[in-house]
Amino acid sequence: MSNTITETNALSLLNTAVKIAISNWELQNTRLNSLLDKLTDDQLAVQTAPGRNSGIYLLGHLTAISDGMFTYLELGERLHPELDNLFVKNPEVAELERPSIVELKAYWNNVNTQLKQRMEALPAEAWFAKHSAISTADFEQEPHRNKLNILINRTIHQGYHLGQLVYLLSKTKA
Amino acid sequence: MSNTITETNALSLLNTAVKIAISNWELQNTRLNSLLDKLTDDQLAVQTAPGRNSGIYLLGHLTAISDGMFTYLELGERLHPELDNLFVKNPEVAELERPSIVELKAYWNNVNTQLKQRMEALPAEAWFAKHSAISTADFEQEPHRNKLNILINRTIHQGYHLGQLVYLLSKTKA
Repeated sequence: MSNTITETNALSLLNTAVKIAISNWELQNTRLNSLLDKLTDDQLAVQTAPGRNSGIYLLGHLTAISDGMFTYLELGERLHPELDNLFVKNPEVAELERPSIVELKAYWNNVNTQLKQRMEALPAEAWFAKHSAISTADFEQEPHRNKLNILINRTIHQGYHLGQLVYLLSKTKA
Repeated sequence: MSNTITETNALSLLNTAVKIAISNWELQNTRLNSLLDKLTDDQLAVQTAPGRNSGIYLLGHLTAISDGMFTYLELGERLHPELDNLFVKNPEVAELERPSIVELKAYWNNVNTQLKQRMEALPAEAWFAKHSAISTADFEQEPHRNKLNILINRTIHQGYHLGQLVYLLSKTKA
């Protein structure tokens, strides 16, 4: 079916695996950014479905989760740890003082720009090392719980909420 | 930060990369199955949001896309190619004769059971080989467009629709 792997090209295939994960993460960012370009601030403020999270809350939530990757991937200090309390630990109904749409969009873009630069600078071996939230002992038992797994898991999570955010678009199909 | 990769453990890390992709795909299946266990047939028949796809349509859509993986991953004949016309090529508003919820759930479970068995039997090198829909020439230029990429991409797609399907659950939070 396919040529077997020599030890030498195994190294290049590892880089391919990392490229796949990063490119899928970037694709989700591109899709969310193009959706944000289409939505007015008024549309973003609306609930994605009756009684469900608004676009603003989900944007803050996704920014907080992406910002958390600085910690999980050990890429440096988080840019906006304050978002966890506003968009992760507390639901939208909690009356808290939250950033404006303009501020959130700036945070979102800045977090992703910084993440992209630092992720692309990581060598393949770093992606197969343990993430910050698993013990060395557990990691020895479950070596798949590495940084690459975090990136793929967060990308799926972003797709999950993107599926909800697209409901903010006015329907064009009859 | 982490030990560099020797050519020998590069092979085991490739298996780790494959395990990450398969385990994330299975996690999405587990989440969708537990959601299906919670939803009544009446709830599944409802639109996920006003004017949006129903749970039944999305279940058929996800079954069709997963069934398509037999082709992309070259795992054998598709089990239900007829679903493409009903749940991919045509929107829900198209008045077509579609399978019942009971039938769709059986298709969904069977497709995933078969896929899981065949995916877990694939050696790592097969995951890094080209998928069925890209030419050998294009694959030489873009080696990341392999079977592993298809699996990750389809897993994100499933997460996308799972984010919509959870809206079928009655809200418990005030």
